[in-house]
Amino acid sequence: MLRTALSRRAIYPALRVGTHRYPFPQVRLTSSAPHPRPFLYRTRQLLRWTGYTVASTVLGVTLITGVIFVHDAFTYTDAHVDKVPVSPLALFPETGGPKNLPVVSAFLGDIEDPENERISQKPRLVIVGGGWGAVALLSKLSLGDYHVTLVSPDTFTTFTPLLPSAAVGTVQVRSLIEPLRKIIARLEGHFISGKAVDLVMSERLLEVEVMGSDGHAKSIYVPYDKLVIAVGSVSSTHGVAGLETCFQLKTVGDALQIRRRIMDNFERASLPTTTPEERGRLLSFVVCGGGPTGVEAAAEIYDLCQEDIMRYYPKICRQDVSIHVIQSGEHILNTVSRIVCFFRSLTFTSVFQYSEAISKYAENKFARDGVELLTNARVSSVHPDHIVYTKKDTETGKLEKYEIPAGFVLWSTGIAMNPFTYKVAGYLPNQVHKKAIEVDSHLRVKGAPLGDVYAIGDCATIETSIVSHLLELVDEADKNHDGKIDLHEWELMVKSIKRMMPMSEMHLDRVKELFELYDKDKDESLTLEELATMLQDIGNKITTLPATAQVAAQQGKYLGAKLHRLTIREASLTQNMIPREGADEFISKPFTYRHLGALAYIGNAAVFDFGNYSFMGGLWAMYAWRSIYFSEQVSSRTKALLMADWIIRGIWGRDLSRL
Amino acid sequence: MLRTALSRRAIYPALRVGTHRYPFPQVRLTSSAPHPRPFLYRTRQLLRWTGYTVASTVLGVTLITGVIFVHDAFTYTDAHVDKVPVSPLALFPETGGPKNLPVVSAFLGDIEDPENERISQKPRLVIVGGGWGAVALLSKLSLGDYHVTLVSPDTFTTFTPLLPSAAVGTVQVRSLIEPLRKIIARLEGHFISGKAVDLVMSERLLEVEVMGSDGHAKSIYVPYDKLVIAVGSVSSTHGVAGLETCFQLKTVGDALQIRRRIMDNFERASLPTTTPEERGRLLSFVVCGGGPTGVEAAAEIYDLCQEDIMRYYPKICRQDVSIHVIQSGEHILNTVSRIVCFFRSLTFTSVFQYSEAISKYAENKFARDGVELLTNARVSSVHPDHIVYTKKDTETGKLEKYEIPAGFVLWSTGIAMNPFTYKVAGYLPNQVHKKAIEVDSHLRVKGAPLGDVYAIGDCATIETSIVSHLLELVDEADKNHDGKIDLHEWELMVKSIKRMMPMSEMHLDRVKELFELYDKDKDESLTLEELATMLQDIGNKITTLPATAQVAAQQGKYLGAKLHRLTIREASLTQNMIPREGADEFISKPFTYRHLGALAYIGNAAVFDFGNYSFMGGLWAMYAWRSIYFSEQVSSRTKALLMADWIIRGIWGRDLSRL
Repeated sequence: MLRTALSRRAIYPALRVGTHRYPFPQVRLTSSAPHPRPFLYRTRQLLRWTGYTVASTVLGVTLITGVIFVHDAFTYTDAHVDKVPVSPLALFPETGGPKNLPVVSAFLGDIEDPENERISQKPRLVIVGGGWGAVALLSKLSLGDYHVTLVSPDTFTTFTPLLPSAAVGTVQVRSLIEPLRKIIARLEGHFISGKAVDLVMSERLLEVEVMGSDGHAKSIYVPYDKLVIAVGSVSSTHGVAGLETCFQLKTVGDALQIRRRIMDNFERASLPTTTPEERGRLLSFVVCGGGPTGVEAAAEIYDLCQEDIMRYYPKICRQDVSIHVIQSGEHILNTVSRIVCFFRSLTFTSVFQYSEAISKYAENKFARDGVELLTNARVSSVHPDHIVYTKKDTETGKLEKYEIPAGFVLWSTGIAMNPFTYKVAGYLPNQVHKKAIEVDSHLRVKGAPLGDVYAIGDCATIETSIVSHLLELVDEADKNHDGKIDLHEWELMVKSIKRMMPMSEMHLDRVKELFELYDKDKDESLTLEELATMLQDIGNKITTLPATAQVAAQQGKYLGAKLHRLTIREASLTQNMIPREGADEFISKPFTYRHLGALAYIGNAAVFDFGNYSFMGGLWAMYAWRSIYFSEQVSSRTKALLMADWIIRGIWGRDLSRL
Repeated sequence: MLRTALSRRAIYPALRVGTHRYPFPQVRLTSSAPHPRPFLYRTRQLLRWTGYTVASTVLGVTLITGVIFVHDAFTYTDAHVDKVPVSPLALFPETGGPKNLPVVSAFLGDIEDPENERISQKPRLVIVGGGWGAVALLSKLSLGDYHVTLVSPDTFTTFTPLLPSAAVGTVQVRSLIEPLRKIIARLEGHFISGKAVDLVMSERLLEVEVMGSDGHAKSIYVPYDKLVIAVGSVSSTHGVAGLETCFQLKTVGDALQIRRRIMDNFERASLPTTTPEERGRLLSFVVCGGGPTGVEAAAEIYDLCQEDIMRYYPKICRQDVSIHVIQSGEHILNTVSRIVCFFRSLTFTSVFQYSEAISKYAENKFARDGVELLTNARVSSVHPDHIVYTKKDTETGKLEKYEIPAGFVLWSTGIAMNPFTYKVAGYLPNQVHKKAIEVDSHLRVKGAPLGDVYAIGDCATIETSIVSHLLELVDEADKNHDGKIDLHEWELMVKSIKRMMPMSEMHLDRVKELFELYDKDKDESLTLEELATMLQDIGNKITTLPATAQVAAQQGKYLGAKLHRLTIREASLTQNMIPREGADEFISKPFTYRHLGALAYIGNAAVFDFGNYSFMGGLWAMYAWRSIYFSEQVSSRTKALLMADWIIRGIWGRDLSRL
């Protein structure tokens, strides 16, 4: 309105004067009095528009809140449930299997409505675990593809990359988790809160330990047509003694425990009856492992001290804090990253490590902050009040022993198999890998009936040994059956290898050079021995995929898409008489991993590595780091929670309650 | 702009046509084309304004978020702390007291800056407990009044009225707590995370058990000039066996445990290997106690089942749920309320009970919802899988025993002294009350050195026995020293009693009638015996104050205001040579309680009782209930958290994760 008046004044100078003659007094409202002081006028205009904006913001927010509360009102129902149909088999299951345990062949909800009844006829897909792999897999399935059952001891999935933040209260633990039941509800799936303990592959039964109604653990069998193992891993001990006194950071339970310990230590340190030595020990935080988890945990502890401890605890507590990061390598962040898949449209080359520039940046930041970095150092034992580590003396080259008093030790180095994976691997022939179950490039567990059992994520590793396939490769490539491979046959064989094991691709680039290099006797053909040596060498060069959320999520998505395709192309499979064992190759390419980058928070700053280029910086990078994690949330609910957490921390600081 | 154009069109019909002749094409923008279809036009206008509102809401919210994140950026500092001055006594405290324990005569932060140094010279006020009473007391003190020390095992204060909501995940537990360190920071006070275990009144030392730096409990002495006991109470067992298997709902820890158990029970119930009988037992929720806590817990469990269980668990689980409330009285909500003080400007008469209409309304609501109410019933024993209660047969009048299988039992009836209060009460003469420490109407602990020790909240009860003051009252009133009290002297005495014990006021209304009633020999004067009988009778009529948050908060505020006044009027006290023991009477009236009402949530509905009038209703009452609790939050931080919780529950339902 005002702007109209203003523009009119400029355009119709005569008209404005003329309005006075009009008999309608309202006109003045429109063209208003002249403004002798444009500055004052503009200020007033600005204020008025600010007023409009604020008013409509308030109105808008009120409206939105109002709509939510009205919606809220309708979530309360008085509906009663009467006589839900339940299959007798679900009420009184039969027993069976080698241990004669109850077999869950029907679920309570299986016939509660027609939709469920239809789905209960579908093949049984059982997924063990509720982490990145399992959730990614579920996201690619459609309702009715399978009768899905999810088995997990925790009833929720966790956004693991933010665990270091949750450990010091920057975000709430509950903002990182989403109930698995809400995720499988879309597929009308079933959830069993229990721990997989054994597997009977011959009868397709998964043994699950659940909490019985009397509070004691008991075992049941869950039958499957297809089984996906996605149970993750446990921390590797590296043979170090005393790890039971350490904290880990793999679950939200760990984060809660760390939070309790940190707050306890500050409370104890602020008592005058604590001696200065003890205060120093209580406030000495030791992080073993310079990977992203360790680095972020150290950064978050530093932030906590700088911001909240400074304000609410005696200042001497802040003065006495010391943070130490012990890293076996020469630099921190030189390990493979643990990053989620983002910027889906971009592809990068397969560099799994942070660049050197990034390590350097992080190291400088820590040096400025007074965070002690102990590189080339190895922890040899952990004790309740101190740790012992060895470090090579740079001059003498001798290993020297050192001690740090410690009030808190975080152990975040390496992974190992959990008991279930260990047991399963033991049943299988040719499983030589010590850290995970070996799968082929279609993610099928090697040695298990093909097409029955898959494994994804940290608990799985894709085979890298080409030489173990030597005979079948020769069989296929040796067209003239002379027991030797000539250059043409070798070219065919390379194609097979690449198809079978996409990870070997970059090592098979120079086909001819390779042939000539290993053709020791220069007879223009490779004998079986020469071939074996070559394949062994190439296999050794293939790096296994890192145990990261990014890998697990990509594998989950790959497998989910494949399993979905299996059901929609079932008719065509039957028509072509493709057996169950060959179905994977028929409908899908092998799994290929695309590394999309790595990032880490290093305390009021962040570093990013996208393979070809990397960048790092202060606050703006921190917000970029936050937005990437924000966009990767599993549900809009956790997004809202996370945003609320960040805003609340921004205004009122971290939650310091010891709960 | 559009509105201007519109009004102009009405006013200047000729002018609009005329604009065409003008050489400025912009003009058309101002007066625009005619609108032949007003409906379409208005719709467009409406849409445009909606657009403006939405746009400015988005803009406003973005701006606010932006401002917060900019602020956020400045909360990260790189400041380093060097050489904080600390008193040697705080680093190496001396030992002393009867048990020769370390005495905390100086704190770590006492001389870290000039402000702290000034405050450390002030009298030492030690407050034991961090609940409603303590927090209300702190709110009335000013910076520099005292050297304040807060002793509490928990590092936070809890908004107890919403614990039933937190127990089922309607709100998050962390939204109900506020760190005590943040609350005492305003007063530059000190916090000790520990449990008061003993008191040495002769040396003014409080014995506190803290967690030593080695993880073991150890005791220290905290010296005080003034001590306030505000430790609350524990649940009364009423001599019932098996209460260790019950849940309580007094702390956030209790709420978390209940939440875990409820989710566990639903997980176990949804396993097909659970028998139908066991399923029924697991999903049988028994609440012992029909007070507000019990009623609200039952209502919240009902809500959880109706909304979230229905959606994510097999429907048979919802079908098999049963909720039982066992109440010893004839009606639920007939106990005293546990309400916070709100509507501060209004005063109501002292009716501490919910009205009958409200009980009736709640009972009807529960009957409709299928929540079983067992009134006139008493729990006789609790077992791990069932409870036993007795109920009088309405026909024969005989007590009959009944059993209910139970998967969850909540015990929420009555209070008892905690070990510290019990010990303190044991040291004092004339402490006859069994549930709490007796204090006089100035809230000073009876029998302790006057002006040294106060007690407020659930752990304290104001004396109601007038007869124990008989001799001093007679001494004061018997002007002619004849050992008898005539009507005039009685009138004087009534004034003294009212002054000393404001709670007796309503029982001393009819002064003359009382005198005549007890003057058995009609000699127009009361003998000592007659007087004793009368005062005994009146004392018995005085109801003790209920153990509610409302009472604790009012007592805290009263005492805080008095302690503040004590310091600002210190000079006048010295001038008037008022001893420490008489200072309270000199500067303050005795404590009087004003009951401000009671309210309870009963599942998608709420009831309110403001003494003189009460009201109840559905959703709107629920929102009124929420707003009252919202306005009573201890900090803006918990307000924001609570609002976020309600909004998030409204959109995405309760958090079902079992953590």
